[in-house]
Amino acid sequence: MGNKPKVSNAIIRRLPRYRRYLGYLQTKGVKKVSSNELSEMIGYTASQIRQDLNTFGEFGQQGYGYEVDKLYKEINRILGLDREYKTVVVGVGNLGQAITNYTYYYKIGFNIMGLFDVNPKIIGNWINDVEVMDYSKLEDYVKREHIDIGIICVNRENAQEVADRLIEGGVKGIWNFAPIDLVVPAGVALESVHLSDSLHALSFMIKSMDQSSDKSR
Amino acid sequence: MGNKPKVSNAIIRRLPRYRRYLGYLQTKGVKKVSSNELSEMIGYTASQIRQDLNTFGEFGQQGYGYEVDKLYKEINRILGLDREYKTVVVGVGNLGQAITNYTYYYKIGFNIMGLFDVNPKIIGNWINDVEVMDYSKLEDYVKREHIDIGIICVNRENAQEVADRLIEGGVKGIWNFAPIDLVVPAGVALESVHLSDSLHALSFMIKSMDQSSDKSR
Repeated sequence: MGNKPKVSNAIIRRLPRYRRYLGYLQTKGVKKVSSNELSEMIGYTASQIRQDLNTFGEFGQQGYGYEVDKLYKEINRILGLDREYKTVVVGVGNLGQAITNYTYYYKIGFNIMGLFDVNPKIIGNWINDVEVMDYSKLEDYVKREHIDIGIICVNRENAQEVADRLIEGGVKGIWNFAPIDLVVPAGVALESVHLSDSLHALSFMIKSMDQSSDKSR
Repeated sequence: MGNKPKVSNAIIRRLPRYRRYLGYLQTKGVKKVSSNELSEMIGYTASQIRQDLNTFGEFGQQGYGYEVDKLYKEINRILGLDREYKTVVVGVGNLGQAITNYTYYYKIGFNIMGLFDVNPKIIGNWINDVEVMDYSKLEDYVKREHIDIGIICVNRENAQEVADRLIEGGVKGIWNFAPIDLVVPAGVALESVHLSDSLHALSFMIKSMDQSSDKSR
């Protein structure tokens, strides 16, 4: 690996939010924005925002702020959204289909090239012009088509094996929806969406609030 | 509000992971586990784990560790998973349907009582024994049925209005899938799943790795 300074996980989480707000400002026709204005919208401090953006270059001007269009474009570039990615979805159940539709619908540069499943009843079906193929062909397909990202929508028991096959095939990143913390080698990016963890965190917050209001009565 | 010590967001994120690993140990028939063993599996330090669990009570025994079944049950209780929640889903597009199916399939105590949409073509349809109702009836329904949680699967533009209606109806929590940071009053729990942010974080990590390996060549 190189000697590029490693960017903290916290910044990686904040960058997409900056992008989201700048995209919103763009649709509203806003041309420039200060770090103070961004701070009021996003909730991070203005100095935090300036520091984050300074990590990647000099985008603002003292006393002027940021040009919205330019900063939006820069953040897209920083996030690697100035290119397209070839992806496959493994596991074409409800969630797999939803993620396929979501990714297709939003046209966000993550092109789903193939869908894979073990269920003979759905192999050969087409979803949004993409064919459902036999899982046994996954690794060959990923190699041949130079797939960048594998999206895992199978159950917990099978998720690590799917990840191993994707990695053998040469993917650079995995977007995991299975409720398990996958193990991947250095050099492969892993991002997980744990829906049940999220729902349980919500449940905890509701419970905590109930208890607070009981005590204050 | 009461004077209960507020639990940090970091602990709220860790608790569902403890639950996930303990559930896994349970399915494997493991009866007891030490904080060191948990640490190796989960990746947090053993002292972090002990400290987190001590926040909620004395669950372990010095030199013995934790009883898996008992700790799993306790964490369920702490997370508020020892009760059932009544939920509604607003926005029955691809994602709304997937979340409905997901929640239905896993039988995890979050019972979907009603689905709501504005599209006359799908109002009156049934998904997993739940009817799609007219969005205009949302607030009345939430009040009448004492709905606990509203799940928002509409687009960015409409999400805040949906949240306001759900809150007027009396929900205690919102599980938000729209790509926007909703504003909710104190006393209402908010948990968001920002799929696009997650995908953009993955993209960033892939890009960073590409650059590292370019430099090291």
